[in-house]
Amino acid sequence: MSDNDIDALIDLMARLPGLGPRSARRAVLHLIRKRALLLTPLADVMQQVAITARECLNCGNVGTTEICDICASEKRATGELCVVEDVSDLWAMERAGVFAGRYHVLGGTLSALDGVGPEDLSIPRLVDRVASEAISEVILALNATVDGQTTAHYIADQLEGQVKLSSLAQGVPVGGELDYLDEGTISAALNARKQL
Amino acid sequence: MSDNDIDALIDLMARLPGLGPRSARRAVLHLIRKRALLLTPLADVMQQVAITARECLNCGNVGTTEICDICASEKRATGELCVVEDVSDLWAMERAGVFAGRYHVLGGTLSALDGVGPEDLSIPRLVDRVASEAISEVILALNATVDGQTTAHYIADQLEGQVKLSSLAQGVPVGGELDYLDEGTISAALNARKQL
Ligand SMILES: [Zn+2]
Ligand SMILES: [Zn+2]
Repeated sequence: MSDNDIDALIDLMARLPGLGPRSARRAVLHLIRKRALLLTPLADVMQQVAITARECLNCGNVGTTEICDICASEKRATGELCVVEDVSDLWAMERAGVFAGRYHVLGGTLSALDGVGPEDLSIPRLVDRVASEAISEVILALNATVDGQTTAHYIADQLEGQVKLSSLAQGVPVGGELDYLDEGTISAALNARKQL
Repeated sequence: MSDNDIDALIDLMARLPGLGPRSARRAVLHLIRKRALLLTPLADVMQQVAITARECLNCGNVGTTEICDICASEKRATGELCVVEDVSDLWAMERAGVFAGRYHVLGGTLSALDGVGPEDLSIPRLVDRVASEAISEVILALNATVDGQTTAHYIADQLEGQVKLSSLAQGVPVGGELDYLDEGTISAALNARKQL
């Protein structure tokens, strides 16, 4: 059997989302086999990220500076502010490469069940930003879940009359086949149909 | 978007088996959120394992010593030698906790398709061990795949007449791999092993 360091590594890897004990063992054996190409570089960059990673004080994005690149760039001061639940959603928007403005990361959604209220998210800070920055439009890009939509409605109520509000359109994803979509998506796509 | 260190971490994590780009991004955000509890300990133990991990010179098990704990323990000198394809299979046998002897890790299976011959595996070393160590029985615990069984037959041919040979039999499903099996199945297969 393996020794203490290796067991400790397996235990820690198994705590990552998407990896269980079995895939953690496979990953560790893979790391040991690819020591120079993978294990050592990974250890080094983790050490580095553990020191430098931080949340942007302005928007909540994760980077290595007090103010993230997007908030620091004057080119992104378009007046459009895209509100997302999580940093992973911000990164997904950036990969799409179609939004030129800035972001606001809520850090989750309102949830009566889990006892998450507005003050547990960065909603007060969003209201402050809209009042103090030159924001012309707030785009609510929350997930199309019950909690996501509840949160979007709450934020819309808070900002009503202060700024133009919009949300991402719901519909059939590009390349999506009707037969694979849930009824809610089909229903939303039908209701938002466009005349040709 | 994230900075260079964070992107580098995502890229390296995405090269682990079982993690793609999307789950790598999720894992990295999780690591950054659990910096003290997960990221820093993981970086430290990876650093340590990168220095200390090595293959046992005798059996091929992965550990942190020249000779692994199993090969070093006199209690494991039962005369039974269990031949497995991979270190993960050895670990699966150990988790089952039903085998008291020692192991021999082949490092794969014979494969005409992939051009893997006996000299690419540790088969010559296995033949040496059977001749030089006090081995009374070789248990072939290879996966119930075509390549696994081909390899088992080849080894049985090599060792015929020199030592008692057996293989795991009942309980191993056709096409099944040891690392996927529960402990009870492995235990049943070991107890019902057939002499060849
Ligand atoms: Zn920012
Ligand atoms: Zn050993």
